[in-house]
Amino acid sequence: MSVVHEFKVEMTCGGCSSAVQRVLGKLGDKIEDVNIDLDARTVAVKSSMPAEELLEVIKKTGKTTTYVGVKN
Amino acid sequence: MSVVHEFKVEMTCGGCSSAVQRVLGKLGDKIEDVNIDLDARTVAVKSSMPAEELLEVIKKTGKTTTYVGVKN
Repeated sequence: MSVVHEFKVEMTCGGCSSAVQRVLGKLGDKIEDVNIDLDARTVAVKSSMPAEELLEVIKKTGKTTTYVGVKN
Repeated sequence: MSVVHEFKVEMTCGGCSSAVQRVLGKLGDKIEDVNIDLDARTVAVKSSMPAEELLEVIKKTGKTTTYVGVKN
């Protein structure tokens, strides 16, 4: 079952958010949707993958990332 | 033998360059020095690691990266 997991990611410019988008994009079909709010520094990911795995993927960008929780 | 490999990395803010620095930092002792020029968008890495491996590591950030060559 897919849920939307929200993460706080230290993004400060459009290059930052593009990088996050690209890294998540590499997961292909495993990701149903990605919603990035640069001002709020949040990344919402719709996926059936566990939050912990998604966290590891986003952390690959080198950006400080924390898991917020499931978004309703 | 350590050489300095130069890469062109699509960095647009301090957050971008910090992310690159952090990802390379995870390699620990394998990296002797990292020199990032945000304006020039270049990353110079002193290491005995092959350029191809360094390229893969930097690409993990999700930023468009190309290898320039060995810097003298």
